[in-house]
Amino acid sequence: MDKAALFQQIKIKKSFLCVGLDTDIQKIPTFLLKESDPVYTFNKAIIDATVDFTVAYKPNTAFYEEYGAKGWISLEKTIDYIRSNYPEIFIIADAKRGDIGNTSAKYASAFFDELGADAVTVAPYMGHDSVLPFLNHKDKWVILLALTSNAGSADFQYLTSDNKKLFEKVLETAKSWADPDQLMFVVGATHPEEIALIRKIVPDYFLLVPGVGAQGGDLQAVAEFGLNNECGLLVNSSRGIIYRSDKEDFAIQAGIEAQKIQQEMETILIQKGLV
Amino acid sequence: MDKAALFQQIKIKKSFLCVGLDTDIQKIPTFLLKESDPVYTFNKAIIDATVDFTVAYKPNTAFYEEYGAKGWISLEKTIDYIRSNYPEIFIIADAKRGDIGNTSAKYASAFFDELGADAVTVAPYMGHDSVLPFLNHKDKWVILLALTSNAGSADFQYLTSDNKKLFEKVLETAKSWADPDQLMFVVGATHPEEIALIRKIVPDYFLLVPGVGAQGGDLQAVAEFGLNNECGLLVNSSRGIIYRSDKEDFAIQAGIEAQKIQQEMETILIQKGLV
Repeated sequence: MDKAALFQQIKIKKSFLCVGLDTDIQKIPTFLLKESDPVYTFNKAIIDATVDFTVAYKPNTAFYEEYGAKGWISLEKTIDYIRSNYPEIFIIADAKRGDIGNTSAKYASAFFDELGADAVTVAPYMGHDSVLPFLNHKDKWVILLALTSNAGSADFQYLTSDNKKLFEKVLETAKSWADPDQLMFVVGATHPEEIALIRKIVPDYFLLVPGVGAQGGDLQAVAEFGLNNECGLLVNSSRGIIYRSDKEDFAIQAGIEAQKIQQEMETILIQKGLV
Repeated sequence: MDKAALFQQIKIKKSFLCVGLDTDIQKIPTFLLKESDPVYTFNKAIIDATVDFTVAYKPNTAFYEEYGAKGWISLEKTIDYIRSNYPEIFIIADAKRGDIGNTSAKYASAFFDELGADAVTVAPYMGHDSVLPFLNHKDKWVILLALTSNAGSADFQYLTSDNKKLFEKVLETAKSWADPDQLMFVVGATHPEEIALIRKIVPDYFLLVPGVGAQGGDLQAVAEFGLNNECGLLVNSSRGIIYRSDKEDFAIQAGIEAQKIQQEMETILIQKGLV
């Protein structure tokens, strides 16, 4: 999927929502635990209930690796389910990988060839040869960490060199590695004041914005500073959608919450003249 | 395992070698491909042949994830094999993970509780709350990326802020997070000129040094600048040991190469008065 196809999906769904499938067996409804694969059963129900309101799903690999090979099977089945039933969906493996070149090539193969994701999140610390092997896969995306949503983002990402903060250096350097059809950046919703600055550095690139909802970020502020003329935003919510209820109605409630966010996004897209 | 126990093993084996189990199905002897789990069969043979000369094994997760759940089973079996047969060995999951706090806690559980590794490599970009959840596991280690061995290390790790390079900032900041019984740093052997500087910043911490062998790093230079009075070094070799032969004698040749490096290390340890 290229950028134009992603924007087309955003216009069709009137949504730039990404639903984070951070499926924690300790948080899903307990009646699901009798299923042979509770994580997959939960994910299927959440996907079916939210798919009309979202353009992307983002399973975070940590929640699957916690259960070893069994967790990987749940992850593989989840991605196959989306791919088979909803081929228009953009699938992000939130893995935050990155290693020396020959090793990053293995990760790229793991997430693109084996799992079948459209995009993988990558950490920038190791530089160009840790990122480029992912970009060798045609029609697949790198989503590079720039300014993350957590408190620890202040430790190193704001260090200033040549009057530029580290996250600015990451943006400026990385945009020479790939065009906006293969590269996006992670920018936390908890930093709305920085999103305008970031938009100036990478005007045409999509930003994947986590941190709305449970982490306290604000959708209106993100949209005000982050939208461009092809939307340019995927705003993720995980816990704020998937854990609305721990009863039989868990999927219904997730759908209601996803629709609420979609409607807010539709209003924003109309105001901006994008739909 | 704490630092004293690790140093004890180094004195017993007269070695500070770590063997990297970057097991690539395209590089192992082809006659192994008829086995039900060629990767595990290869690893077992390599481990049995090299274990007298090494204190640590370091499987890199990318080489296992490339084969999805099946690869994770090979990884789990490999770690179980080491743990059951050679309990004195220090096991490093080279995973380069790091995420927001609640997610890093899941990775810590994946690698320490589920897989049973002693240590996991972690990327520093996301700061303290991406690292601290790993340190909540008693007797388990974080090995934090500081100065990596690859060409891309020049992109961001040398950026200078307040007269300090980013990797120096990472070292100085991270040493306030944990003492040398739970924290080490990755420092590439391809930067021997920086190891003396790094040793001044973190005199008592172990350094995990990849890049000797296939990547061109030099053991003598690493030892000259990196040794401290408890050794303080784990020097890793992966491709340089495990792919010495693609014939029936692959394990024998790996053992011969590991012993050669061990003997060089023994000479160094004797010269330094550590054994």
